[in-house]
Amino acid sequence: MSTDERKVTITVIAQEAGVSVPTVSRVLNGRSDVSPKTRARIEALLAQHGYRRRVSRRRESSGLIDLVFNDLDSPWAVEIIRGVEDVAHAAALGTVVSAVHRHSGATRQWLENLRARASDGVILVLSTLQPAHQEELRRLNVPTVVIDPAGGPALDVPTIGATNWAGGMAATEHLTSLGHRRIGFIAGPPALLCSRARLDGYRAALDAAGIDVDDTLIKPGDFYHESGFRGASELMDLRDPPTAIFAASDQMALGVYEGLRQRGLRVPDDVSVVGFDDLPEARWSSPPLSTVRQPLSEMGMLATRTLLRLARGEQPDSPRVELATDLVVRDSTSEHAR
Amino acid sequence: MSTDERKVTITVIAQEAGVSVPTVSRVLNGRSDVSPKTRARIEALLAQHGYRRRVSRRRESSGLIDLVFNDLDSPWAVEIIRGVEDVAHAAALGTVVSAVHRHSGATRQWLENLRARASDGVILVLSTLQPAHQEELRRLNVPTVVIDPAGGPALDVPTIGATNWAGGMAATEHLTSLGHRRIGFIAGPPALLCSRARLDGYRAALDAAGIDVDDTLIKPGDFYHESGFRGASELMDLRDPPTAIFAASDQMALGVYEGLRQRGLRVPDDVSVVGFDDLPEARWSSPPLSTVRQPLSEMGMLATRTLLRLARGEQPDSPRVELATDLVVRDSTSEHAR
Repeated sequence: MSTDERKVTITVIAQEAGVSVPTVSRVLNGRSDVSPKTRARIEALLAQHGYRRRVSRRRESSGLIDLVFNDLDSPWAVEIIRGVEDVAHAAALGTVVSAVHRHSGATRQWLENLRARASDGVILVLSTLQPAHQEELRRLNVPTVVIDPAGGPALDVPTIGATNWAGGMAATEHLTSLGHRRIGFIAGPPALLCSRARLDGYRAALDAAGIDVDDTLIKPGDFYHESGFRGASELMDLRDPPTAIFAASDQMALGVYEGLRQRGLRVPDDVSVVGFDDLPEARWSSPPLSTVRQPLSEMGMLATRTLLRLARGEQPDSPRVELATDLVVRDSTSEHAR
Repeated sequence: MSTDERKVTITVIAQEAGVSVPTVSRVLNGRSDVSPKTRARIEALLAQHGYRRRVSRRRESSGLIDLVFNDLDSPWAVEIIRGVEDVAHAAALGTVVSAVHRHSGATRQWLENLRARASDGVILVLSTLQPAHQEELRRLNVPTVVIDPAGGPALDVPTIGATNWAGGMAATEHLTSLGHRRIGFIAGPPALLCSRARLDGYRAALDAAGIDVDDTLIKPGDFYHESGFRGASELMDLRDPPTAIFAASDQMALGVYEGLRQRGLRVPDDVSVVGFDDLPEARWSSPPLSTVRQPLSEMGMLATRTLLRLARGEQPDSPRVELATDLVVRDSTSEHAR
C-alpha cells in the first residue's frame, strides 16, 4: 500500500468520525490527548476498516525491548526477567521492565512511552491487557510475544506457556506410585485455564491408577498462601482425611505446611505434600518441597528469541509453544504407611 | 571550560598517548573498538589530567533510567525493581534492567549500550563495578546512585543503604527480652561491611543485657541456605547448645529450620530463630519467621527519587542515606523455658 493510499484511509476515517486528520493520528499514535468518547468512535472505525499502520519492516532499532507485567508482586517475576535479560543482553538489547498495575491509566502511559522510545518489541507476561489496548498495540506494529504460564485464551500473537495438564498428572502419579489413594487437591483460581488443566491432570492420574475421584477431596484456592492453609484445614477435618495433598501452587503448598504444623502433623511422616512452580522457596522450605517445575526463565529466553525472530520479519514455528514441566522430588513426599 | 579548551585537552591526551584524537574519543565514548593496552594508556592519562567530559547539564531526556544488578539470582531483586519501577513509571520514565554477571565483557557491553541510548541516569545495586568501569561511568557524566544494602566502602556518588547495626541489635534484643541467654549467631560473608555491622549489633545487644559474648556461639556463613543449615548443626553439637539462633539472612534462617528439623527439634518450642531481610518466604515459612525487615522497595524508590533530583542538577541531602530496618515478630520466637 502506498503512502497516498494510507493517507486516504486516515482521511476517510476522520471524515466518518467527524474529526480532523491529526485527531485520528493522535489515536493511532497512542497519545492520551483525545477524549475517551472520540477515541472510542475512531477506534471502532479503525477496526471496522481493518486499518493497520504501515511501517517499513526494518525500522531503526532503538536497542530496547519491553517486558511488561501486571504487577511486580510475584517472586516468579525475577525468574522471567532473568531469562529475558539473558537473551536480550546477548543481542545487545536493553530490557525495559514495566508493571502496568492493572490500571488503565498506567497502561495508556506505558503505551505512550513505548511509542515514544520506538521499542523493538514487547513481551507481555500473563497479560490482562484490555481489548482496546491490545488493538492499539497491534496497530503500533511492534512485534509482540506473550508469556502465559496460566494458559489464557488464544491470541493472535505467539504465546509461550507450560504443560500444566502434564504437570498435574506427574504430581499426582508420583503420589499414587508411593501408595497414596486418598489424595487431596487444592485448586487454582477457576478463571484461569491453567487451574483447570492441573485439576484435569490430577483426575487423569487417579483414573490411570484405578482410583475413583472423590470430589470432597478437591478444595478451592487462589494460588496464595492463605488458601492453601484453609484448604489443608478443611481436608484434615474430613472424616476420612487424605494421606497426601497436591496444591496447585508452591505458595499454597507452604500454606498446607503451616496448616499441618498447627495441628501437630508432620510432613511427610503424617501427610505428603506436592506443590507446583518450583520457586526458590520450594527448595528452602523445611522439609524441601517436592513440586512441579515451571521453566520460567527458559520461557523468558524462548519468548525473547521468538521476539527477535519476529523483529527480523520471520515467522514463529507455532503460534503457541508449551515448554515441559518437570517433577522435582524432594523430601515432602514419602510412601503411604498402610 | 569552552569547547576549544576541551578540544585542546583531548588533543593533548592523544599526543601524549601517541594515538589519534578519534581514538581518545572512542575511549571517552565507552566503545569497545580500542585495544585493551591502548585503552589503559589513554585512561591513565585521562585520570592524570582529571579530564571530565563537558556536557550541557540539560541533555535531551531519553526517557530511560538504568537499573543494574550483578546478577538477577536473588529473590530480593524483584523488591528493588518494584520500588524503582514505581517511581520511574510515575515520572514517565522506562526502567532498563540489566545484569552484568560480574563479567568485565558484559559490563563493557552494558556501558556501550548505556552511552548509545543516552540513559537519563543509572542505579547500581550492590555494585562490584571495577574501578576502571566506575571511572568510565563518571566520565560519561550520567547521574548515578548506588543501592547498597551491604554497606560497601564510601563512593563519590549518593548511596542508599539500610541500618544493619541497628537491625542486628534489635533482633538480638528481641531474643534477650524473651529470656534467652545462650544465643547463637550465624554471620554473613566477612568481606561485606553489613556482615560486620550485624555482628556488632548482636554483640552490643548482649552487652546491654549483661551477657558475656561466647565466641563459640558465632559461626561463619555466606547468606546462603546451606551455610545456615551447617551453622545450626555446629551450634546444636556444642556441649551447651544455644536456645535461640539469630541468622544474618532469611535464607540462612531457613537453613537453620531444616537443620533443626532433621534433628527432630521444633521451632520455636525447642529453639527460637530470627532472620534478617524479610523476603516473602519469611512470611510463608512454617512457622512464619521473625526477622529484621530491610526496606528494599523503599530503597529502590528513594534511589530513583535521588536520581531524578541529580538529573535536574540538584544535590542530594546526604551522600549516604540509611533507611531504618524493622523487627517483624512472627511465630519462630518464644520465651525461653527456664
